[in-house]
Amino acid sequence: MTSVFGGVEGGGTHSKAILVAADGKILAQTEGSSTNHWLVGVDKCIEVINDMVQRAKMEAGLDPNTPLRSLGMSLSGGEQKDAIDKLIDQMREQFPTLSQHYFITTDAIGAMATASDRGGVVLISGTGSNCKLVNPDGSQIGCGGWGHMMGDEGSGFWISHLAVKTVFDARDNLVTSPHDITRVRKDMEEHFQVSDLMGMLPHLYRNFNKSHFAGFCKKLAEGAEAGDALCQHVFTEAGRVLAKHVEAVLPTAQEPLLNGEMGLPILCEGSVWRSWELLKPGFTEVLGKLASSNKFKGRFHGYSLMILQHSSALGGASLGAQNIGAAISMDYSTNAKVFYRQSFSSNQ
Amino acid sequence: MTSVFGGVEGGGTHSKAILVAADGKILAQTEGSSTNHWLVGVDKCIEVINDMVQRAKMEAGLDPNTPLRSLGMSLSGGEQKDAIDKLIDQMREQFPTLSQHYFITTDAIGAMATASDRGGVVLISGTGSNCKLVNPDGSQIGCGGWGHMMGDEGSGFWISHLAVKTVFDARDNLVTSPHDITRVRKDMEEHFQVSDLMGMLPHLYRNFNKSHFAGFCKKLAEGAEAGDALCQHVFTEAGRVLAKHVEAVLPTAQEPLLNGEMGLPILCEGSVWRSWELLKPGFTEVLGKLASSNKFKGRFHGYSLMILQHSSALGGASLGAQNIGAAISMDYSTNAKVFYRQSFSSNQ
Repeated sequence: MTSVFGGVEGGGTHSKAILVAADGKILAQTEGSSTNHWLVGVDKCIEVINDMVQRAKMEAGLDPNTPLRSLGMSLSGGEQKDAIDKLIDQMREQFPTLSQHYFITTDAIGAMATASDRGGVVLISGTGSNCKLVNPDGSQIGCGGWGHMMGDEGSGFWISHLAVKTVFDARDNLVTSPHDITRVRKDMEEHFQVSDLMGMLPHLYRNFNKSHFAGFCKKLAEGAEAGDALCQHVFTEAGRVLAKHVEAVLPTAQEPLLNGEMGLPILCEGSVWRSWELLKPGFTEVLGKLASSNKFKGRFHGYSLMILQHSSALGGASLGAQNIGAAISMDYSTNAKVFYRQSFSSNQ
Repeated sequence: MTSVFGGVEGGGTHSKAILVAADGKILAQTEGSSTNHWLVGVDKCIEVINDMVQRAKMEAGLDPNTPLRSLGMSLSGGEQKDAIDKLIDQMREQFPTLSQHYFITTDAIGAMATASDRGGVVLISGTGSNCKLVNPDGSQIGCGGWGHMMGDEGSGFWISHLAVKTVFDARDNLVTSPHDITRVRKDMEEHFQVSDLMGMLPHLYRNFNKSHFAGFCKKLAEGAEAGDALCQHVFTEAGRVLAKHVEAVLPTAQEPLLNGEMGLPILCEGSVWRSWELLKPGFTEVLGKLASSNKFKGRFHGYSLMILQHSSALGGASLGAQNIGAAISMDYSTNAKVFYRQSFSSNQ
């Protein structure tokens, strides 16, 4: 099995594994539960990974006792070197027939590697948010990703929180809402099953569930699509602050990232991007202003927003192969699809 | 003991009890642990109250088996009617010799009743923040008090969070800090015992301790006093948003609150007010602008900031007496002291 490479996409809720040949052919795909080791612990994490990969071997008609050439894992929570090294050591010891070599990176980097080998920006907006710029030379710079107490701007949690806070501030006469709050308040009472603001307190403290809180965002998207101005407003604000994450990392972009015909490639991950049309007014405004400002002196000609067509387990597998000097043939043109493009060149 | 009234000031950390005669003479004072029933439970809460009051009876040379005429309690967490009724029922049943009558109100209202019987604004800034306007006719309106996830603006927690967030945003290039972050970053690393931003995450999530987080505010006050511009900035912002709480409740103020010679009385509670000189630039700016705006058409002539000289257990006792048609003679002129006064009359 010296020519079979494995990849894992590990999330906070569920995970995927993929087996791929050197020519890029996908041999098998399986799914499993969370492999965020901060959430489920190291033991559970590696057990789920082993189980997914061994099932994939069998699905592909391979001998489960023959190790893969390499296993590249793109894990949410795969940030800290010490923890990652420990994870790999334990896998090696506990599952000697799983793989010859191991490689772990973050979800952002795995996603990037699925879309391109030339780098770009990964902009995640799901329950939380995060932004990472990867240069062609592999150097990285991040913005955000600190969780709901210190960041998560533009995420599902943040959008829900902004809407709820607007209702609280209007009730308190502390900040005047830019639009009528009637629909948002009604939807809030429905989503959280409360009859007044006091009832929101358990949802914010004792019974706080980030994913459920962020889930209110879906109702807000429906409201925005139905024409409610406040619902539209919170998404416009989210678009604005997500674009500001791009602005934050842009100064470190190397020339090839900016000079391609598609402009800066921005890979969009997470379910909030399903509401792109709602994010668009704020997002395009901020980047449009940036392009016409003096800040990048004509270097920022445009950008393309892309969405993945394959699991980022594929990018994980590719990075795992690269890490041992091997390579998987990747067809990047089919791995990611451009869904929006803005060009500023005519203005400069 | 028909002429002895009791009062309790109940906090999240510690509590006080007071016995007072109808002529206002304080007969005894005792202390105890937390009586916030949301934090310690109803059983513990009423046990601590009973213990403090019975010790006070003995200290005053009174028979502990003779009930007080009334016991008025000013409790943090004394907001919801159902919970309060339950608390009183249980006290009556469990400690029949404690008091003939009971009355429970919030910490804000108890504080107000200690300072004045004509109403005013109570503006709390401690670990958290809250604002309440009490009219001469007893009607109330609040702003804030929703905790750190949905409010607490201008509190110790909020000031600490603003400083830390400024450091994160500067590191991320997401928002440019208005001032150099060197000292705040160093102080943050010292207070939280961390060497990088990643180290802050346990303090924000797994090991979050609101009181410890808010405690960073003290270091920031030292920095501000030593001349650090960013430390000064976060306090100015806190002053600004605290004043906005006053602005929020002001439209509901009845004329007598605004027409007195001292202007609107604002009772300041909580340890952040020790840094009044640092809050002052933002606070006076917002209320100054408000006075010169058309919003109150010359009705807002000025205000006086006051601080209590006695425990708000005294106000609790007074309200408890009033509740049964009795009265305690109160010398409001000594119960609260004005520490700052601003008058706008000459401009109008």
